[in-house]
Amino acid sequence: MPATIPTESEVLGYFKSLSNWGRWGEDDELGTLNFLTPEKTLKATSLVQEGVTVSCARTVLFEPSLDVPVPPMHYMIESGEGWASGDKVSSRVSQASIDFFGMIFHGFAITHVDSLAHFFWEGKLYNGRPAHLISTSMGATVESIELAKNGIVTRGILVDVPMIRGVDWLERGEGVLPEDILAAEERCGFKIEEGDVLLVRTGQLHRRSVEGPINPRVDGSTACQAACLPLFHERGIAMLGSDTGNDVSPTGYPAITNPIHQVGIVAMGLWILDNANLEELSQACRERNRWEFMLSIGPLRLSNTTGSPVNPLAIF
Amino acid sequence: MPATIPTESEVLGYFKSLSNWGRWGEDDELGTLNFLTPEKTLKATSLVQEGVTVSCARTVLFEPSLDVPVPPMHYMIESGEGWASGDKVSSRVSQASIDFFGMIFHGFAITHVDSLAHFFWEGKLYNGRPAHLISTSMGATVESIELAKNGIVTRGILVDVPMIRGVDWLERGEGVLPEDILAAEERCGFKIEEGDVLLVRTGQLHRRSVEGPINPRVDGSTACQAACLPLFHERGIAMLGSDTGNDVSPTGYPAITNPIHQVGIVAMGLWILDNANLEELSQACRERNRWEFMLSIGPLRLSNTTGSPVNPLAIF
Amino acid sequence: MPATIPTESEVLGYFKSLSNWGRWGEDDELGTLNFLTPEKTLKATSLVQEGVTVSCARTVLFEPSLDVPVPPMHYMIESGEGWASGDKVSSRVSQASIDFFGMIFHGFAITHVDSLAHFFWEGKLYNGRPAHLISTSMGATVESIELAKNGIVTRGILVDVPMIRGVDWLERGEGVLPEDILAAEERCGFKIEEGDVLLVRTGQLHRRSVEGPINPRVDGSTACQAACLPLFHERGIAMLGSDTGNDVSPTGYPAITNPIHQVGIVAMGLWILDNANLEELSQACRERNRWEFMLSIGPLRLSNTTGSPVNPLAIF
Amino acid sequence: MPATIPTESEVLGYFKSLSNWGRWGEDDELGTLNFLTPEKTLKATSLVQEGVTVSCARTVLFEPSLDVPVPPMHYMIESGEGWASGDKVSSRVSQASIDFFGMIFHGFAITHVDSLAHFFWEGKLYNGRPAHLISTSMGATVESIELAKNGIVTRGILVDVPMIRGVDWLERGEGVLPEDILAAEERCGFKIEEGDVLLVRTGQLHRRSVEGPINPRVDGSTACQAACLPLFHERGIAMLGSDTGNDVSPTGYPAITNPIHQVGIVAMGLWILDNANLEELSQACRERNRWEFMLSIGPLRLSNTTGSPVNPLAIF
Repeated sequence: MPATIPTESEVLGYFKSLSNWGRWGEDDELGTLNFLTPEKTLKATSLVQEGVTVSCARTVLFEPSLDVPVPPMHYMIESGEGWASGDKVSSRVSQASIDFFGMIFHGFAITHVDSLAHFFWEGKLYNGRPAHLISTSMGATVESIELAKNGIVTRGILVDVPMIRGVDWLERGEGVLPEDILAAEERCGFKIEEGDVLLVRTGQLHRRSVEGPINPRVDGSTACQAACLPLFHERGIAMLGSDTGNDVSPTGYPAITNPIHQVGIVAMGLWILDNANLEELSQACRERNRWEFMLSIGPLRLSNTTGSPVNPLAIF
Repeated sequence: MPATIPTESEVLGYFKSLSNWGRWGEDDELGTLNFLTPEKTLKATSLVQEGVTVSCARTVLFEPSLDVPVPPMHYMIESGEGWASGDKVSSRVSQASIDFFGMIFHGFAITHVDSLAHFFWEGKLYNGRPAHLISTSMGATVESIELAKNGIVTRGILVDVPMIRGVDWLERGEGVLPEDILAAEERCGFKIEEGDVLLVRTGQLHRRSVEGPINPRVDGSTACQAACLPLFHERGIAMLGSDTGNDVSPTGYPAITNPIHQVGIVAMGLWILDNANLEELSQACRERNRWEFMLSIGPLRLSNTTGSPVNPLAIF
Repeated sequence: MPATIPTESEVLGYFKSLSNWGRWGEDDELGTLNFLTPEKTLKATSLVQEGVTVSCARTVLFEPSLDVPVPPMHYMIESGEGWASGDKVSSRVSQASIDFFGMIFHGFAITHVDSLAHFFWEGKLYNGRPAHLISTSMGATVESIELAKNGIVTRGILVDVPMIRGVDWLERGEGVLPEDILAAEERCGFKIEEGDVLLVRTGQLHRRSVEGPINPRVDGSTACQAACLPLFHERGIAMLGSDTGNDVSPTGYPAITNPIHQVGIVAMGLWILDNANLEELSQACRERNRWEFMLSIGPLRLSNTTGSPVNPLAIF
Repeated sequence: MPATIPTESEVLGYFKSLSNWGRWGEDDELGTLNFLTPEKTLKATSLVQEGVTVSCARTVLFEPSLDVPVPPMHYMIESGEGWASGDKVSSRVSQASIDFFGMIFHGFAITHVDSLAHFFWEGKLYNGRPAHLISTSMGATVESIELAKNGIVTRGILVDVPMIRGVDWLERGEGVLPEDILAAEERCGFKIEEGDVLLVRTGQLHRRSVEGPINPRVDGSTACQAACLPLFHERGIAMLGSDTGNDVSPTGYPAITNPIHQVGIVAMGLWILDNANLEELSQACRERNRWEFMLSIGPLRLSNTTGSPVNPLAIF
């Protein structure tokens, strides 16, 4: 386990040392979802003691803001206006309202899961497939989010880094280190195991509510530092989630812009949950001093798509 | 309980006799989600015996077809093409792919939850609010799907009507009757109770896979007949789902186009799951001869929106 | 002609004194396009001396900026990538590229024509029709841009206010006055007549290229002041265009947010061209010391739509 | 000039024999728009005798139909509903309506101009540029429709093939031959010259109004046969337009799916107008027995886009 931040050359070495290519067969498209087993799911249900559910999603807002330069679209095909007064001009026979919504879910605003089709390294996808299989006209002809159609229902674990460090939030450009995660294990009494979804709180969403939105592309971001990758590999987590876009920015590495996404998705086949809302979850965990819970994520069954917006539910 | 199909005048009477307006207070926006309690959620986890999950969502396809006249959109903002050969023209520094998707989820193709903002009757929403609060420019300023942000995690029950009746599927224009549901209770050994999500299979999606798509707006549909509404009310289901758009078409009633939606949503505050995929679920239930299961639905936290596409997960 | 800026009460009086309701019949939807006649079009062709054409449209950019909070969309359905190398995954048999584009053309960025369906006053459209005929689900069931399907081909006249005033540009919040227009007539030797398209340059687009974009909703705008309306009415212009959104902001009137659009569109039936690019045109006029030209505008034949993006062509 | 339909090998030969690569310089992106000169534009104005304008665009409809499998989108951001009654919920202070529209203009329904970025042959664009310059994320980084920003204002000529042949319309799968065009020249008294826009009517839009829409991808189409290409090259037309998608379908050539687009755009640099509406124009020409007119086309200044919807105006 690195005690300090790895050099770029060390991170480049992860592409080989942490690789899961071939581990589950040459044709595997599931990557770390292979760690999810019925036994794991069954065991997660035993964590439920109260029946209280907590959403780990941010609200999708349709207005532009600094971290949403291209806002999602929400247009009413039909609204409730005019029905009462009777001077309604509509082709509909029933009184109803209908929406269109559209979005680019990748980015820094919408809570979403990345499928393994989202990132490439040197022209290759996870497990060695060529990047051009993610096609302009046909989308993700391999590694589509549809592969997760039966959901991710397993144990979730919250590592609340600001609590561990005794700060309000981590600074932008700064990274979560494996030491933070190990300290959380010790202090909170859990041990991260195969098939877990690891949720790492940096406090960035809290900071946004205090200081307002910033543009992560310009102002930077915090997240797990690349140093955490060997730990994720060793423990066999099924998915990594955080309250940011899951990469420290700037990375400090000239050639590696997104080590968590690049090593994680491409080499390890690691599924990633970006921009989660861990505020309500953090509160729920602190109140109970319980940091593990049943977690249920049902990505939309979008064909040939590189991910999906989600509303992950933690169940206590 | 009506032994036969109710007259239009009887169905109109349901708007009063089955009304939940005021039942949970004048300001209530949750309707039948009030039946969901932590106890109910906790109890549902005890149904999990194996840890096997089954998706109840259809795959979202982006091609037009008879039942998808306005197909969802899926465009690649960036694809995997060109990265390997190196002659890539892109503003991106990292090799990644990014999607835009957009959709009108209401209709007959996409598995989605209706919030109580979706239907009106005589210019009014559930609990008596005026329909114009569902605004053209601002969307569902009340009764937004966001109210279900903490998810619907409860017991699910499958009523597999073709199995009960010994047919492949119900005919279009024909309706599921309360007698079918009561017969399923008797035969399958469950009893529908407060806070359950009731999933009613008509076999229509199976028929689609055998005979190809049709246009329900022209060719009609099957679903629960209005006669089931008193039973839903009596039992206190939290949500009704089916493998169709949840209304018999044509209804046979000149003035009531969608009795399940109109009485259900507006009078009862009943949350509805349209166009579920109950094929894999039906298979799973038959194999186990078990018709109840834990069900987890996490609607997207879309602000001011009248529903959400979902991927409901049944957990055995 | 007002020598000074009119009071709010005077502007409110314009709704009656400048009204064209009923002037061309009770059913009229064309408003000031009635001033366009074949004779007028024919006469405009006689202005062409060189055959040089100049675009009066801004380039449509697809990136967000301060004056484009919701940027137009441009996505490639198919691109040129991958065809050469042969590792193309496509459902197409021919090598082609295809775009999707979408836009909200109203606002402060896109050169577009407003049809008479774009603005209401006290719930009414031009010629007294009720506003609800512009329907949420069906669009502009009256006064659609389609009415201008045969185009606006007539004499165009440029009033270059910064040149007249000897400044680089007008200040935001400041308005063009009738005196400016009359001074231009005198100095430049033209007389605005029935059926002309009057293009008023404020220099705002030039300022944008010097100082960068601002948000007109926050920082204000310049345009013709309400005081110009009687002159427009007296002369019978067919269309008013400018290089801004065509209303001074803030207006200085508590109850009238957009006098040019409100009196112009609703009372006068005046067609309006917003956000034109008059920079190249201004240059062309100065070089020739000619301020009149043939102008050809072909709005898209969009059914039930309240306007259209356009590329107006000045022909010298 | 071929008296009969050329073989595939002959058409393949056109890529060399009709090539304009290098003709206007190695950097040229304008192709046949180079034939457009101020003199040509000036001369076209002399054709105007009456000042009557005729639109050559089809109405853009927003409903799906057989020839519009993915219909254009038109959503009201704000409508006229609710303003009169006063129970409007809106963030707007003024009473206005606003639209969003979006479209894939290529295809068989929308009147549009193709820029030279729309088609490739063997991985190359017109003038030898590599196809990957039409990029997934950045669009048409060369050969964008913006190049036509100053419009196409020139002489238009209508070849009304059904009139020449004495039929109602051409059959699908059948092609217009050079002989048809030469016969029209003789009969109608014009001669196609450099810089003209040639409009070829097949009667297909008339047939659609009589028999209803069909799916050209399945049922085929008529257009100019590849045999016409040498004539277009010899005469130096600036643009070819027709009332169809401008390629006979099926082509009859195993390896060449769209000879007019492939040879025309890629080898000749020929600009193309697809899906024009020549019905009103045909009527206007027959009434006057005049087949030439001033034509004004102002493509939208869409950055990095492979074409634009247009409303071409014929002026008599």
